[in-house]
Amino acid sequence: MSRGFSTIGVGHPRIDAIEKVTGKARYAADFSLPGMLYGKIKRSPHAHARVLSIDAEKALALEGVKAVLTPWDVPRVLHTGAPAPRLGSLRADQLVLTDVARFVGDGVAAVAATTEEIAEAALDLIEVQYEILPAVFTVEEARRPGAPLIHGTEGNLVMPPIIVQAGDVEAGFAEADLVLEATYHTGRPSHCYMEPNACLCYFDESGTLTIWASTQCAFMVRGILSEVLGLPLHKVRVVVKHMGGGFGAKQDLYQHEFVCALLARRTGRPVKMVYSRKEVFMATKTRHPVSITLKQGVKRDGTITARQALYVSNTGGYASHGPGITAVGTIDMTSLYRCNENWRLEGRSVYTNAPIAGAFRGYGAVQSFFALDVQMDELAEMVGMNPLDFRLKNAVGEGDPSPSGHRLRADALAACLRRGAEEVRWHERWQPPEVKTGRVRWGLGIGTEMHSSGAYPDIKEQSNAILKMNEDGTVQLLTGAADLGTGAHTVLAQIAAEELGMPLANIRVVSGDTDMVPFDIGAYASRTTYVAGSAVQRAAAELRQRLLALAGEKLGCEATTLEIRDGEIRRQGQVLLSVAELVRGEGGRPAVALMAQATYEAKVAYSFAAHFAEVEVDTETGMVRVTKVVAVHEIGKAINPLGVEGQIEGGIQQGIGHSLTEDLVLDPETGAPLNAGFVDYKMPLAPDMPEIRVIILEEAPDPDSPFGAKGVGEDPIMAIGPAIANAVYNATGVRFRELPITPDKLLARLREQGETDTA
Amino acid sequence: MSRGFSTIGVGHPRIDAIEKVTGKARYAADFSLPGMLYGKIKRSPHAHARVLSIDAEKALALEGVKAVLTPWDVPRVLHTGAPAPRLGSLRADQLVLTDVARFVGDGVAAVAATTEEIAEAALDLIEVQYEILPAVFTVEEARRPGAPLIHGTEGNLVMPPIIVQAGDVEAGFAEADLVLEATYHTGRPSHCYMEPNACLCYFDESGTLTIWASTQCAFMVRGILSEVLGLPLHKVRVVVKHMGGGFGAKQDLYQHEFVCALLARRTGRPVKMVYSRKEVFMATKTRHPVSITLKQGVKRDGTITARQALYVSNTGGYASHGPGITAVGTIDMTSLYRCNENWRLEGRSVYTNAPIAGAFRGYGAVQSFFALDVQMDELAEMVGMNPLDFRLKNAVGEGDPSPSGHRLRADALAACLRRGAEEVRWHERWQPPEVKTGRVRWGLGIGTEMHSSGAYPDIKEQSNAILKMNEDGTVQLLTGAADLGTGAHTVLAQIAAEELGMPLANIRVVSGDTDMVPFDIGAYASRTTYVAGSAVQRAAAELRQRLLALAGEKLGCEATTLEIRDGEIRRQGQVLLSVAELVRGEGGRPAVALMAQATYEAKVAYSFAAHFAEVEVDTETGMVRVTKVVAVHEIGKAINPLGVEGQIEGGIQQGIGHSLTEDLVLDPETGAPLNAGFVDYKMPLAPDMPEIRVIILEEAPDPDSPFGAKGVGEDPIMAIGPAIANAVYNATGVRFRELPITPDKLLARLREQGETDTA
Repeated sequence: MSRGFSTIGVGHPRIDAIEKVTGKARYAADFSLPGMLYGKIKRSPHAHARVLSIDAEKALALEGVKAVLTPWDVPRVLHTGAPAPRLGSLRADQLVLTDVARFVGDGVAAVAATTEEIAEAALDLIEVQYEILPAVFTVEEARRPGAPLIHGTEGNLVMPPIIVQAGDVEAGFAEADLVLEATYHTGRPSHCYMEPNACLCYFDESGTLTIWASTQCAFMVRGILSEVLGLPLHKVRVVVKHMGGGFGAKQDLYQHEFVCALLARRTGRPVKMVYSRKEVFMATKTRHPVSITLKQGVKRDGTITARQALYVSNTGGYASHGPGITAVGTIDMTSLYRCNENWRLEGRSVYTNAPIAGAFRGYGAVQSFFALDVQMDELAEMVGMNPLDFRLKNAVGEGDPSPSGHRLRADALAACLRRGAEEVRWHERWQPPEVKTGRVRWGLGIGTEMHSSGAYPDIKEQSNAILKMNEDGTVQLLTGAADLGTGAHTVLAQIAAEELGMPLANIRVVSGDTDMVPFDIGAYASRTTYVAGSAVQRAAAELRQRLLALAGEKLGCEATTLEIRDGEIRRQGQVLLSVAELVRGEGGRPAVALMAQATYEAKVAYSFAAHFAEVEVDTETGMVRVTKVVAVHEIGKAINPLGVEGQIEGGIQQGIGHSLTEDLVLDPETGAPLNAGFVDYKMPLAPDMPEIRVIILEEAPDPDSPFGAKGVGEDPIMAIGPAIANAVYNATGVRFRELPITPDKLLARLREQGETDTA
Repeated sequence: MSRGFSTIGVGHPRIDAIEKVTGKARYAADFSLPGMLYGKIKRSPHAHARVLSIDAEKALALEGVKAVLTPWDVPRVLHTGAPAPRLGSLRADQLVLTDVARFVGDGVAAVAATTEEIAEAALDLIEVQYEILPAVFTVEEARRPGAPLIHGTEGNLVMPPIIVQAGDVEAGFAEADLVLEATYHTGRPSHCYMEPNACLCYFDESGTLTIWASTQCAFMVRGILSEVLGLPLHKVRVVVKHMGGGFGAKQDLYQHEFVCALLARRTGRPVKMVYSRKEVFMATKTRHPVSITLKQGVKRDGTITARQALYVSNTGGYASHGPGITAVGTIDMTSLYRCNENWRLEGRSVYTNAPIAGAFRGYGAVQSFFALDVQMDELAEMVGMNPLDFRLKNAVGEGDPSPSGHRLRADALAACLRRGAEEVRWHERWQPPEVKTGRVRWGLGIGTEMHSSGAYPDIKEQSNAILKMNEDGTVQLLTGAADLGTGAHTVLAQIAAEELGMPLANIRVVSGDTDMVPFDIGAYASRTTYVAGSAVQRAAAELRQRLLALAGEKLGCEATTLEIRDGEIRRQGQVLLSVAELVRGEGGRPAVALMAQATYEAKVAYSFAAHFAEVEVDTETGMVRVTKVVAVHEIGKAINPLGVEGQIEGGIQQGIGHSLTEDLVLDPETGAPLNAGFVDYKMPLAPDMPEIRVIILEEAPDPDSPFGAKGVGEDPIMAIGPAIANAVYNATGVRFRELPITPDKLLARLREQGETDTA
């Protein structure tokens, strides 16, 4: 790159910042149409029950009720519910409305009425007769012989186990001086996006369904709705405006999206549905609780010789992303730390009658890296090495295999570890747990991760972009990529502005209408900057070439002697004319209306991170307070450093919650969530947040990506969990192989090791 | 073309037929937004008056009134009001709200209120003090020395006269055996579209103006609004849904579009404005009343030797398309009939205080061809030739010049004349007027015309198209081209379907959102099939190539051996797989999301027509009844013959109105329209319609156009007028050199030649 950057690499407030902070930004639930009805879903109070009959007579008699739908009134098309990645391995096991409830909150009927209150009242008037079936909530129960079969599959397995193996594991273990086998468990956190799921559906005069939805994958929603409703794709239009978060859960469709469309079709009127927070908790998705039995062998010199793991996920009542996260979680255990390429990994996903688990930031690997990085700490201690040095010795680097099958190109993980260690003065400040005393004990721990930008090769990662040049030098950037609230559209605008040589303010991002914007598979897998950004950069490069050619023609010189900077055509630094002058024709018409379009099919790139967490553990209360996090991320190039920092801080906040407090607790008897609301489900708030020092490394820019940039969306939540668990160990000597580390558990463990009395 | 056509050349009902006939189609006025206000314009009752002051206090005090705008509250940016063709020659002489009213109905203030009724009431409470200025309504008055200068231009000329000359006119006249000079006048018909002008404006949270409008030229509306409101183009979004006609008048912006946006900006709320029918009549546009003094020389053998004309248009209070239609009307008199290439033509456009005249189907040439074709009839009689033979002798054909400067490629006009003559059995049935007797007299007359498809070379004729392939084999066709109600979108869909080898039902036309669809200059000049259709065809051809390449790859054969028919990939007639199978990837995702885009910059093509009108004239009442019209049109290729017939029948209906009854009559004292409503302004209704026989000739397909097609939108209205006037002459011997031919005028003329007593 012969020139410096104008727009990228500098922190920009999000292009939609003002409309968001002023409360003017509109989300799916903010849209209304004349004559609109409100839809509600009647949910099963039983975790496993057959619907014998539904009597809607009383509900229909209520004034204002316009329609009731039962499982027998809707298309009985089994669908996956999860339109995005790894569809090949998803199971089509969901119905629009089910006649067999498989978790508490499964939707069995729906109503449309003139007000929300009437719809709510009508739900109570719908009489459902159930045959209650035996239910199971844990993997152990579900796998037990004689357990009820939730979808009829053997042993309640969602799919055949995933086996990933290489080298000779037995030989590896034989070579080891020490072998550690332990089981690690993760909790059931909820996504807790600010914007509850909502949609508004109507059929227009041409019979086309328009649905305003809050989704990460508008085109995939279009696909599944089309399939289930029996409409061709060009008669389904999905519109996404602002989004208040998704974190993976909004990759999926929920019952309301189908039901809303069907109620609109039935009544001939627009229908809106908005989930309550309770519905979001009980009837959308959680992260998969996973247990990982991990066995590694290690030599006295710290060389890991073999790795074996059994990864078992509890996917709840439906498969959703169970197969996907299990595959990723399993395969990702080949990475992060070398093991002489001897591994045998098995992944299983199991149906239970728990709430459905789905895609969640970190997609199955959060659990794997928790197990791996905690065990790294344990192994370091076993071989008597400093945990930092042990990690550096085994950290994957150039030439090592990656989960995608490609070899890594740089030693980025080691660079993150070294830079973070320097920042926290690791060798100066880290001390083993034995020396910690006092009631409040300080600890320091490391967590690491790596994450691919996009899901190649599992998914054909395609994005497209169209740029339309206006005759005043402004540009419309058409993208199918969603902005979940991450600032993705700001990044795309920056990429376009940089590549075009135009001011950022001249770019307007137009997105979220599947009728008009080019296809995009959706926002997930930290792919938007990397994949959609590449399509934008390529379209912008093409548009720039066209502008330069036009300028060369107009100025009578070689286009190759010209460049565009700050919206001006220049030759050797001299401004010759503005882009606006170039494209504006006589009488305000365009001289020529320029467009450019690009399709990009991505390969893969890996981001890395090392988090150094400092905690203070109160041994009297069992409270863990994270006091500081140094987060070192290698991401190739930060297009918008402000946005990158925001993502990392947000990931740390969410990770602290998952590590310490957040867990959707089920009644062990009924399977009903006990804390489906923000009063009882504790997310970290501002006062709970540590000082965070974000360090961005740009050591390994990706050659195919926009300006070298790689994804950063998921990375921060993956490293923080083990960093906290390891810091708690470092503070107290209590080794947690499970999350969340709640005060009651910590106190119990301290008590076990006779700590509470000595405090 | 080695293969037959599947979709084109066959009559298809419009793709939006059902939504229109069921009343479900939504037009600009059908959209509403929560919190919406209603806007109204206060209009001058004086044809020429200076606004001294406006007192809005009482209006603002009325409950529900949210804002009043005066000329001093709005941007004082002079604009052309007419965004489309020949902008270079348009005068920027209009203001959003004027402080000098220049016709009865000129808007001087505006109000926004919570209901239409309150807004209406508030108008009466706005007190305007005027200084009344002397006014002129006719060209004669306006050109008189000492006449008030409406825009300060000398002699009230809108622009310097247009002079078009070639050869040696004087020598040509000297060579002639006979010379005829006469003046021809046309009336002031209104466009009478079914859908009154309407718009809905709001500023969204990003400060972007969205305007739902009924316009032929969405991108041009965007341009002028941007300029006047001081917004960049990427912050103005024009949305056009269904339209209920335009006929040229909706090429322009009106005061309501600016005012509505400004009221929305002022109040922070959405504002809707809908014109009443009276407002449409008085404050939108009419056709230009034109007087043409035409002089031609002719030899005894029927050869025309020279042509001289003075074309004077009355453009009313503002220039609008006055310069444009005057230029076209003047230049078009070089065409249709040869005159040894000796011509001297002058065009003038004159301001008056009449309602504004603007673009109207036939754009200035309707008037020219009326004069020319009536005079052809007169000259034929003078030289003693049959009017058909005289026309055939002089009809332009291969090698003759055209108004665009290109030479014609075929003898299409003669072909139309011959085919029509055959159909009406001209030589058998036509008899000179002298022999006609009785009270009701039958007459037969000919009118002819030619029209370019698009306005090249006056305008850079650019259209664009994007095709998006969906993973089920359906396609979104994105176009900026408007469908005024002509069926243009059906034609574009047919072109895409034909070129792609897909069923028509698989194509969905997406249009009318300037944020998202590709640039199009607008719907005018019979250009949509020709120019926008070419862009569609090119994009479709590219998409087809990509599909075939993909199929070749998948099937392991050369793409060139494959073709697509009926949505199936075939080799030598054998079906190998469907397009849907080809593009659908695993799990319902697209195998590859294909797009194609094309830009087309058109040249020019000419359509021709000859109309043979049969009339019955009641010499007692003066009523003319058109009993039959044979309309022969050479249009290269009829993509949708049903649509072509509809256009021709509609043009004839409108032309009958303009020829016999339609005329916006002004009070000669005040300039106020006397018949601004459908009770007093008489359009032909179904019972007034003749039998129409449409004959489509496809003798001269255009080599650059989609499948050879040329435009047909304007043609039918151009030929019918002279055909009727000539038929009236043929029936009665009364030569009308003016339109409309109303019963009172006809009776007076019959009386003059002593006919009424003999009837």
